[in-house]
Amino acid sequence: MTLKGNALIIQSGGPTAVINQSLTGIMTASRDYPEEIHRVYGAYHGLHGVLYENFLDLSAEENRIWQNISVSPGAALGSARIKPRHSDLDRIFEVFSAHDIKFVFYNGGNDSAEAAQLIREEANKRNYQVRILHIPKTIDNDLMVTDHCPGYGSVAKVVSHIIAGDDLDNRSFFNSVKINVVMGRHAGWIAAATAIAKKGHIDIEDDDEVGPHLIYLPEVEFNEKKFLSDVQKTYNRIGRATIVVAEGIADQLGEERFAGEVDEFGNALLSSSGKLGDYLSNLIKKNLLYNTSFGKLRCRADTLGYLQRSLAGMASHTDQADAFLVGSMAVHYIMKGESDKMVTLVRAHGENYKCETSLCDLKLVAQKTKLMPKSMINSEENGVTEDFYQYVLPLAGCVPELRALKATHVKKKLFDYVRPDK
Amino acid sequence: MTLKGNALIIQSGGPTAVINQSLTGIMTASRDYPEEIHRVYGAYHGLHGVLYENFLDLSAEENRIWQNISVSPGAALGSARIKPRHSDLDRIFEVFSAHDIKFVFYNGGNDSAEAAQLIREEANKRNYQVRILHIPKTIDNDLMVTDHCPGYGSVAKVVSHIIAGDDLDNRSFFNSVKINVVMGRHAGWIAAATAIAKKGHIDIEDDDEVGPHLIYLPEVEFNEKKFLSDVQKTYNRIGRATIVVAEGIADQLGEERFAGEVDEFGNALLSSSGKLGDYLSNLIKKNLLYNTSFGKLRCRADTLGYLQRSLAGMASHTDQADAFLVGSMAVHYIMKGESDKMVTLVRAHGENYKCETSLCDLKLVAQKTKLMPKSMINSEENGVTEDFYQYVLPLAGCVPELRALKATHVKKKLFDYVRPDK
Repeated sequence: MTLKGNALIIQSGGPTAVINQSLTGIMTASRDYPEEIHRVYGAYHGLHGVLYENFLDLSAEENRIWQNISVSPGAALGSARIKPRHSDLDRIFEVFSAHDIKFVFYNGGNDSAEAAQLIREEANKRNYQVRILHIPKTIDNDLMVTDHCPGYGSVAKVVSHIIAGDDLDNRSFFNSVKINVVMGRHAGWIAAATAIAKKGHIDIEDDDEVGPHLIYLPEVEFNEKKFLSDVQKTYNRIGRATIVVAEGIADQLGEERFAGEVDEFGNALLSSSGKLGDYLSNLIKKNLLYNTSFGKLRCRADTLGYLQRSLAGMASHTDQADAFLVGSMAVHYIMKGESDKMVTLVRAHGENYKCETSLCDLKLVAQKTKLMPKSMINSEENGVTEDFYQYVLPLAGCVPELRALKATHVKKKLFDYVRPDK
Repeated sequence: MTLKGNALIIQSGGPTAVINQSLTGIMTASRDYPEEIHRVYGAYHGLHGVLYENFLDLSAEENRIWQNISVSPGAALGSARIKPRHSDLDRIFEVFSAHDIKFVFYNGGNDSAEAAQLIREEANKRNYQVRILHIPKTIDNDLMVTDHCPGYGSVAKVVSHIIAGDDLDNRSFFNSVKINVVMGRHAGWIAAATAIAKKGHIDIEDDDEVGPHLIYLPEVEFNEKKFLSDVQKTYNRIGRATIVVAEGIADQLGEERFAGEVDEFGNALLSSSGKLGDYLSNLIKKNLLYNTSFGKLRCRADTLGYLQRSLAGMASHTDQADAFLVGSMAVHYIMKGESDKMVTLVRAHGENYKCETSLCDLKLVAQKTKLMPKSMINSEENGVTEDFYQYVLPLAGCVPELRALKATHVKKKLFDYVRPDK
């Protein structure tokens, strides 16, 4: 049966560097169905736009704008972090009906999958004809079934370039311990991706000092004693350490001390302040005190913040292509009658990276979190394995190509210097 | 009189994305003087390398490594933040003499200029034949005389791309106030550079919402009341605000509450934790409370941290070229007999950006800080002028090309929705 009417695009949750590629994919593919899709609307600020009947007429836009929009971070339609309440359902279908919404593209993470599922179930009860497909989007890469999530490749590229540079910056100083807190919620995918920094170094085989040296993932229970012992070992080996910590370990450190605001889905802000980094930095300063001829231990902590998902000009090309693909394929699937599903990315076996799409049931995705498998975490539980590198490298699309200097020291001719105190 | 002997390169202070371009410039130009410059050494970790007689034999390196080194952030020779003490002077000249150091290239900021000056004065007293030239380097762009400092163009590019993306990310949400604390010490050059984000937008003439909306510089006395009133005005106009704050205003907010460790030059760490951002964020939350149908005020603060000076793959091409230029020209100047001076960048008048080099007396640079002139700060004292844009745009080398969506809203057909509380 051919369904005809208007299409609605909803962008939900935290934006990514490529969320607008999926939007552009939908806009592009919908032009193949001029008979079935009358107009394409955008919900202005996600579910808010639906509840308050605030739609953007995307079909009215000139085509030339979409290329620029596609490379811009942020949610071009506006996002929201609210959940459809039972009391909202009448209004949602009133609005759908008034605007003849027959096709809904819900672009978001596992919370959006839950919202999409709820609306679809309600549509069945009300006999309202609407097809809904969920399009994956999250920097956290924590959605089930799909090989990976659009948004993740770009954040992997960004954080690995940051840590590669930061490790060289840290290497410039003696006795320097640097902590970087990264996003990722309860999964370690983003923290793990910083390991890419190790792969970019030229003549890496000559260089055993390249960081990050220690990566702490939420998949592993955080143990302060083990953490301090790891830092000590790294310091003993190379006289410094570059450490990456997933914001998700804040939960394991317990209490409210790192938690921030909570949204309607019950998600607490995990790294909106520098608290976790400062806590770990103080832990090191308190427990590992070095006073050498080069001065005391230098310990710094940065919390990388929102730029991880929004840095302009640093999106991964693979990620851009995948995000566009799931958007455009969602249109083709929905026109074939598909509904109540999420578009997934399926990686083809073989030497070269290649992805196709498929569909999976929303129930498999909603409210669930895909953690890193054990095969991708090293035996010391403070880093990654080659399995993970094979997984992540094609997604980030490139490695930061850098080089540290490992020069010959000139032979000394004098007695050792003991620097006077003043 | 022809001086012959070995050359020594000292990298000092905080590294930049292009400090190794200057190093590469020196290495390249020194090949023009095989008779005069016998070998080029690198001081391993700055003045530490001199005091502890720890030199790297850079002439022994294969030439092919320098291209990779030049694009790598961090100080390839190792840096230090120590000051030569009076008691160190005997040792310094003992080491210089033992290794036949006749040419010294001191690459750093105003503290390094002070150190270079001290060593040169002492050399005169001791009748030790050595020429010393200072090569400017600082992301803070706060050195006197020179048009700008190598290192600044890249940080200008990095922070403007970060803020451009962050402003679009912020734009995705209702009632969202975002604060970004950036580096720059007591000068506002880095904070001001985030204004470049406004210039990248395509069809900017149609878009009055592009941030950053407010920029707070250390050159202007920070006033909390004025700050809150500025945020309020911006919120009233567009329902959100993207704010940039220079770390240097921490000093004006007084007390020890934002200060961190202090180095041998008396410089306190200004933004090593999230304290300043959290303070301002709480100030807004306490004084400007919005509860609208879209929820309460969303206020977030990020402290951008060390990635500003070290982000791999984001260096400005102009900055790279300028850093290489001052390094190579230092060699030519020193071989002409110049000493006790800093190499400066002199911008040629005219439509297109072009820089040449000159020299200035070290006394004009040491211990001094170049602040932003009034002509580059807007009359509201919370942003920049066109004068500043003309100054900074060629240095950053490119603008982040982005686009926000300004689409037509679909005509409403229903009554307004009042969302139930549950």
